[in-house]
Amino acid sequence: MNNSDMIISKNNQYVKLAKSLMNRKYREKQNLFILEGVRLIEEAVAAGIKLEFILYCSRLCSSGRGARLLEKITELGVSTFLVEEKIFEDLADTENPQGIVAAAQMTKSRFADIKTKEDNLVMLIDGVQDPGNLGTMIRTACAAGVSGIILTKGTVDLFNPKVVRASMGTMFNIPVVSAVDDQEIVNYLKKNRFRLLIADVAGEKFYFDVDVDGPLVWGLGNEANGPRTFFMEQADEIVKIPLVGKAESLNVAVAAGILLYDTVRRRGVL
Amino acid sequence: MNNSDMIISKNNQYVKLAKSLMNRKYREKQNLFILEGVRLIEEAVAAGIKLEFILYCSRLCSSGRGARLLEKITELGVSTFLVEEKIFEDLADTENPQGIVAAAQMTKSRFADIKTKEDNLVMLIDGVQDPGNLGTMIRTACAAGVSGIILTKGTVDLFNPKVVRASMGTMFNIPVVSAVDDQEIVNYLKKNRFRLLIADVAGEKFYFDVDVDGPLVWGLGNEANGPRTFFMEQADEIVKIPLVGKAESLNVAVAAGILLYDTVRRRGVL
Repeated sequence: MNNSDMIISKNNQYVKLAKSLMNRKYREKQNLFILEGVRLIEEAVAAGIKLEFILYCSRLCSSGRGARLLEKITELGVSTFLVEEKIFEDLADTENPQGIVAAAQMTKSRFADIKTKEDNLVMLIDGVQDPGNLGTMIRTACAAGVSGIILTKGTVDLFNPKVVRASMGTMFNIPVVSAVDDQEIVNYLKKNRFRLLIADVAGEKFYFDVDVDGPLVWGLGNEANGPRTFFMEQADEIVKIPLVGKAESLNVAVAAGILLYDTVRRRGVL
Repeated sequence: MNNSDMIISKNNQYVKLAKSLMNRKYREKQNLFILEGVRLIEEAVAAGIKLEFILYCSRLCSSGRGARLLEKITELGVSTFLVEEKIFEDLADTENPQGIVAAAQMTKSRFADIKTKEDNLVMLIDGVQDPGNLGTMIRTACAAGVSGIILTKGTVDLFNPKVVRASMGTMFNIPVVSAVDDQEIVNYLKKNRFRLLIADVAGEKFYFDVDVDGPLVWGLGNEANGPRTFFMEQADEIVKIPLVGKAESLNVAVAAGILLYDTVRRRGVL
């Protein structure tokens, strides 16, 4: 494509489509979501995520890494469109855009994608609202080697661009089963003999004092309200993290890190 | 103050002053910083932070808690100014403002404010850039019961409104010694016989395999580049957090939680 083909109108169909994908309703309708930035798109390509099209502006090629990504995507046969700088700015969600956004196909994981093994470790997220928190939790769980993540219906959309970004591409590396019915989750956990440990300030035992053997699910709830009663009633243990100093609570992603990594340490997974 | 005194101009001196405090340069010049929201201002008042003035709009009093806070602040003799709804919207930094912002006096902690005790636990933050990360790290460290936090010069400003917000008011409850010269930090640590443990992907041992007895500092670095060589060279141990699954790194605030809480657990602080 040469410069004469550059998109110079914000009413271009691809520009309009990409913008619409900031909205969950349109993501669901089109079965597409937005990826922004060189690194995230590299990760997606490496993980086999199918790109539908990309929009880029000239600055992308000012870095060798950007230029190589563009070349690779072109080789894959994905449609690429050069967009005028100003139009691109309006499209980008980040503060210092690197000059590339991709529309990619949503692939939704199912319970069957979660590997079943004796020392299974899974994270259940019930109602987390902040996209940065959800993305960071996925990144943390992936680092801790979980086999899968389950999101209840009230949780922020997995394909929200801020979630995708905060996950740093890790959401492409593990099954994240999202927007599942509560009872379905319980049925899955029971069928696969998971023990459900839920973190809550009202917990009786400390997290390091409970048994972490066998298939295990760590459950974390909404930032302000914690996990819902439905899951609290299903829990094998409700545990707390000690608050030694003068703080009322921990950030939910930090809590997830503490819980998952204590299990990693105790199991000697390495 | 009755409605006839309502501020209706964005050129009002208090409105202009409050807006200028979004900028570090003006915070330093005025020795003031901005607090936004009912809960944060409650925490500040409880911690003895001196408020210079508050700006509020009518919606504040639609909640009993908001009205009570206004009453309490007035009793304290702080100047309060009612601001027209539209002017207030422009002033607020949060998405769903609760109708109150305060300008408060910056009180800067020194090394002498950090209690010296045998099992001292301190966090050193070298160059963290994201205000949400810094605020969350302060919240986490406070929850873990640290005696103090040290910020190097290259770290995002402690009084950045996003840092203040993410710390959930915990920054008022522990000494945070900020913008300190590198060599001064090292001198302080040596003089007080601290052992410096630094987290880095290049670490040789795992964090749970190193000695955590005696006065201890956990050091964490910049999101992209990690801690600087200067501190790496001063460290007693450089430790890593295992990355079991397919993730290149952890969020720095999550890493802080994992490290600090493992020390809490091993020391049996409770």
